[in-house]
Amino acid sequence: MIQGGQLIGNKTSQHGEDTFVAYAPREERDLPERFHEASGKDVDQALQLAHQAAPTLRQTSLEERAHLLELIADNLESSLPIIEERCALETGYPDTRVAMEGRRMVHLWRLFAEEVRGGAWLEARIDTGEPDRFPLPKPDLRSMRMAIGPVVIFGASNFPLALSVAGSDPISALGAGCPVVVKGHPSHPGTSEWLGRAILDGIQAAGFPEGTFSMLQGKGHDVGTALVTHPNTRAVGFTGSLRGGRALMDLAAGRLDPIPVYAEMGSVNPQFVYPDILANDAEGLAERLFASVTMGNGQFCTCPSIVFLPRSKDADRFLDTYHERVIETPAAPLLNTCIAIAYRQGLDRWETIPGLTVRHRGPTEEAAFGVLDAHHFLDQREVLLEEVFGPASLFVLCEDQDEFPTLAEAFPGQLGASIHGTDKDLQEVSALLNELHRFAGRIVINGFPTGIETCHAMHHGGPYPATSDPLHTSLGLAALARWARPVSFQNTPTTLLPEALQDENPLGIPRLLNGRHSASTAP
Amino acid sequence: MIQGGQLIGNKTSQHGEDTFVAYAPREERDLPERFHEASGKDVDQALQLAHQAAPTLRQTSLEERAHLLELIADNLESSLPIIEERCALETGYPDTRVAMEGRRMVHLWRLFAEEVRGGAWLEARIDTGEPDRFPLPKPDLRSMRMAIGPVVIFGASNFPLALSVAGSDPISALGAGCPVVVKGHPSHPGTSEWLGRAILDGIQAAGFPEGTFSMLQGKGHDVGTALVTHPNTRAVGFTGSLRGGRALMDLAAGRLDPIPVYAEMGSVNPQFVYPDILANDAEGLAERLFASVTMGNGQFCTCPSIVFLPRSKDADRFLDTYHERVIETPAAPLLNTCIAIAYRQGLDRWETIPGLTVRHRGPTEEAAFGVLDAHHFLDQREVLLEEVFGPASLFVLCEDQDEFPTLAEAFPGQLGASIHGTDKDLQEVSALLNELHRFAGRIVINGFPTGIETCHAMHHGGPYPATSDPLHTSLGLAALARWARPVSFQNTPTTLLPEALQDENPLGIPRLLNGRHSASTAP
Repeated sequence: MIQGGQLIGNKTSQHGEDTFVAYAPREERDLPERFHEASGKDVDQALQLAHQAAPTLRQTSLEERAHLLELIADNLESSLPIIEERCALETGYPDTRVAMEGRRMVHLWRLFAEEVRGGAWLEARIDTGEPDRFPLPKPDLRSMRMAIGPVVIFGASNFPLALSVAGSDPISALGAGCPVVVKGHPSHPGTSEWLGRAILDGIQAAGFPEGTFSMLQGKGHDVGTALVTHPNTRAVGFTGSLRGGRALMDLAAGRLDPIPVYAEMGSVNPQFVYPDILANDAEGLAERLFASVTMGNGQFCTCPSIVFLPRSKDADRFLDTYHERVIETPAAPLLNTCIAIAYRQGLDRWETIPGLTVRHRGPTEEAAFGVLDAHHFLDQREVLLEEVFGPASLFVLCEDQDEFPTLAEAFPGQLGASIHGTDKDLQEVSALLNELHRFAGRIVINGFPTGIETCHAMHHGGPYPATSDPLHTSLGLAALARWARPVSFQNTPTTLLPEALQDENPLGIPRLLNGRHSASTAP
Repeated sequence: MIQGGQLIGNKTSQHGEDTFVAYAPREERDLPERFHEASGKDVDQALQLAHQAAPTLRQTSLEERAHLLELIADNLESSLPIIEERCALETGYPDTRVAMEGRRMVHLWRLFAEEVRGGAWLEARIDTGEPDRFPLPKPDLRSMRMAIGPVVIFGASNFPLALSVAGSDPISALGAGCPVVVKGHPSHPGTSEWLGRAILDGIQAAGFPEGTFSMLQGKGHDVGTALVTHPNTRAVGFTGSLRGGRALMDLAAGRLDPIPVYAEMGSVNPQFVYPDILANDAEGLAERLFASVTMGNGQFCTCPSIVFLPRSKDADRFLDTYHERVIETPAAPLLNTCIAIAYRQGLDRWETIPGLTVRHRGPTEEAAFGVLDAHHFLDQREVLLEEVFGPASLFVLCEDQDEFPTLAEAFPGQLGASIHGTDKDLQEVSALLNELHRFAGRIVINGFPTGIETCHAMHHGGPYPATSDPLHTSLGLAALARWARPVSFQNTPTTLLPEALQDENPLGIPRLLNGRHSASTAP
């Protein structure tokens, strides 16, 4: 049974006097369970426990942490039926989508377990000393990443499983050796509770200290503010809107001791379509674009929302096909009332923009699209670059593809950007590509940014406003790097070194030895 | 001849109406040359040129950038006589110290050239695709670091050569492919001008675009504010005081588009001395500590300013030796009047602290030291953790070494921390070491943090307030990582990939290939 409280260490709390309920978008009704807002005392308790657990967690071995992640994966897997049922209810996502995300979530825990165990992410480096060097001796220096301490994570609304209470942020923080306090998203509090319980069961079974993990609920801003400004918090992870992320960035920057906020705040992910591929495959491309836009009903941060096309009969065919798909596809519910309202407001805004024709818009939350020319796009770019979160696409018609590099100059940081072209088209993209090198976190050729592979070379980031920090990623195995800071050890006897830095390389991990990659022992 | 203007791209500007002069601390006189404050127009021009140069720089090869750094090293080396003469005049540092820093600076350019050429810092990663994977194909993903764009650097006062206009920050930013605008420190504007000219000569000789480098002068805050808030600036590097660094952090965080500030803001670098080494070598340890404290006359960010000792006759011998050294060492001038005033104010502050005995203090800028007990230290820790920049040491007498871990809990982020002990002592340091893992950027055993080796395992960082970002270092070869962000390429044909990511590995650089380190070609 759902209890509706906070999971603080090994206990449940229903201190908070304010309560809220979840909403079932598909059934258009409030759900019966009441969830308590975390109180200031709840926040403080969770972060006191996290602070107390931090030194123990920092010293746990890679193997212990990998084992913890695997135990949690098993727990989550065996709880999938109940988690997925509640998740489908609270999000309105189709069961197949929920099931796929559930499998992905369990897989993520196992992938990160393997990565944690492998140890490459520690970036262990050894520069051996030269005591006889003239004029000054060269010290022995060794460095590796060590956990930064308690991390606060804000769960996302749009990926209730793979980017939320049990998603990439908490997995990577636990894997790096940091205690985690998650604030579940108020769109799916019941899902958050089931996920949190499965994680806590794993932590207790693995014998990790109380405070390794807590999960708090909250609908308003108070819980988040208290979490980010609490003195014990060492870093923050967030996935959500630009407005929400920026608010957390400002809170963290205003602290007596500013802390890093790793916020992934979405983007419009521009698509550049060249003429030859448009001539060859206008209809196919339009179908694939529509499938990408409507994944998760347009509520993916990698949704390809702005498409640049050279004006031509082929472009007309492309738009006609897209139009047909839009018309024939029934509305799917958006995740919550706030998102639905914002979606309609975004389309209302479009209707007021000079030169922008909204070619299709349904009465409620149906897919919609607008068309305008490059000149009007550049004139109105500030308002057009604001994401309309949902299944809305904007098509920008250019005189020809030579305008693409200039149009690309309009973009600030983006998570993704794509170039669509035949081999012939791709011979002339270098000026555009140089612009993408400036602003895109990920560049996709002949594909869409939706669908994120968890691997070493995945970078789900980009300059502001796509994220708060251009050097880091919230998805992919490199997500671990945010939660552990390099520490150098100078002239330190082996007995005082972490195992990862000892001469014998007892963990057998890859290390940089005097500037060369090595998996063997120090000389 | 010194011209006293800004070096903006290939031109010199004396627009600014306000001027200032340099001060010669040893001679206690103002120097005759007048330096113009950069105007708002100067700042804008420098950053417009940097913005224009950025795409070209981003696409330069590793070899071209390494060659540039080597050319600049040669130029700086051949200008060393004139640079060092002016530097000694403007800083009052002894000629031997200036000469050593000059050699170090030239060496840094060559070290970074080699590192840039080696390419490991690009963190090239390749995860090859599996088009037939079920249920979804696995895309081919490749990632590497690419330059972020124009970088603003603030030169440090205390290392006029190795941490300033031609120091680690601008070297690493240029090496990463970013245009650089440096603000020289007003303590040594003539030195900055000579350094800037040598760099610009190298840039022109290497055929790099105008705007690759500019150097601006300024005594007040206006130039710095304009640089950090300029829309073209993509990141900031700073070495200096907590107050100065925090002001830049706040400016950057308040921008419409916040940008990263990498500020190294100094620390007090606590030293923990165990009883057995004190019994064996009280006098030797005191001598070595004094030598470390008075390096650069206490104006090193790694100066060991707070020393914890167990109360004993050995501690008395230690303090007596330190006292003798302090008394017999004549005052050396501090770098500028501001630092000298702040030093005296810091010692005045010490005199008001309950329980703190200032055991020696000279009439001007002589080395000084104070003593207090652990109880009073903990009571007054907030004021005592404020750095007294200069040759001042604080000795904290404890009942015994078991108090060390609790005392260590008082510390926020520090650049360095040391443990001094015999083998016997080191058997009981694990609780203390766990605390150092939390707050220290570098842990030194039986040595002092002064003296920073430029190698892969050097981390000159630490949590706030030591720096603004615990994950990055301003010194050591990892300094490159701040100026280049990961970019992923998905399903990208070889012809559109940067060389570093092409199958054939034409650069022969180390890469992570499907999770394994490799210097060979992709399969």
